[in-house]
Amino acid sequence: MKPMLKGMIFVVAAVFVFGAAYAQFAKPEDAIKYRKSVMFLMAQHFKHMGAVVQGKSAYDKANFSTHSDVVKLLSTLPWAASMEAGTDTGDTTLSSAVFKNKTDFMNAAKSFEADTAKLADSARDGDLNAIKAQFGVVAQNCKSCHQQFRTK
Amino acid sequence: MKPMLKGMIFVVAAVFVFGAAYAQFAKPEDAIKYRKSVMFLMAQHFKHMGAVVQGKSAYDKANFSTHSDVVKLLSTLPWAASMEAGTDTGDTTLSSAVFKNKTDFMNAAKSFEADTAKLADSARDGDLNAIKAQFGVVAQNCKSCHQQFRTK
Repeated sequence: MKPMLKGMIFVVAAVFVFGAAYAQFAKPEDAIKYRKSVMFLMAQHFKHMGAVVQGKSAYDKANFSTHSDVVKLLSTLPWAASMEAGTDTGDTTLSSAVFKNKTDFMNAAKSFEADTAKLADSARDGDLNAIKAQFGVVAQNCKSCHQQFRTK
Repeated sequence: MKPMLKGMIFVVAAVFVFGAAYAQFAKPEDAIKYRKSVMFLMAQHFKHMGAVVQGKSAYDKANFSTHSDVVKLLSTLPWAASMEAGTDTGDTTLSSAVFKNKTDFMNAAKSFEADTAKLADSARDGDLNAIKAQFGVVAQNCKSCHQQFRTK
């Protein structure tokens, strides 16, 4: 099987499993807090990687790889919590566009998962130019999804 | 090498790497928010596993395994953020005992990491009795560490 296809199947399977595993929250506020927690953690790890990519911090292969592995796992977590009915109000920036365009949202989520997995692969290889290129791809995912599905 | 020894080496190495990777936060509030985010996510996944262990939810091997894998990774994250100077005040329940007993705190952290890794192994094996026993061990880690290092 071609690696890309295998990767895609893994991503789809992961979304399915995580979707099944995380679809239950005691109350809407928990779903909001859950996904906000994930996003905050991702942002922290992203910031460290970004500083390296921008030349503000020294590149350390093991350290960068650790950050990218954490983001790879975190990238699989927030989607079911983002699709809980009624969680586009309250202490959240989730746009109701998520519920109007579920397929687009899940496609964006799958793309993000696939691209963070590739970043983790690049980090393990340790070619800084390839890492920088893939980091840019991941960042573009963030931007694009936030433009469509975040209110501010 | 014996599996247990390999596991211990992995855990020690992970703590070292994560410690190096996560020791920098822009401000103390970020360290507090970081570890609280991790703890909230762990609690959510724990709750799902707890419901299965208590017989309130049906046991599904893949689902349980996913939860335990997420907790295994999350268990490695909050320690450096918990040892940031000055983060025992503010919006936190971290006890200053952490700073007075750093070795005890890190030993508790390593024990928790090792026991969550074993829970993930049990979940992958799929023997529900073994899972229940190991879940109890992990829960005891939580309780013991909170008693020593949490203010409420």
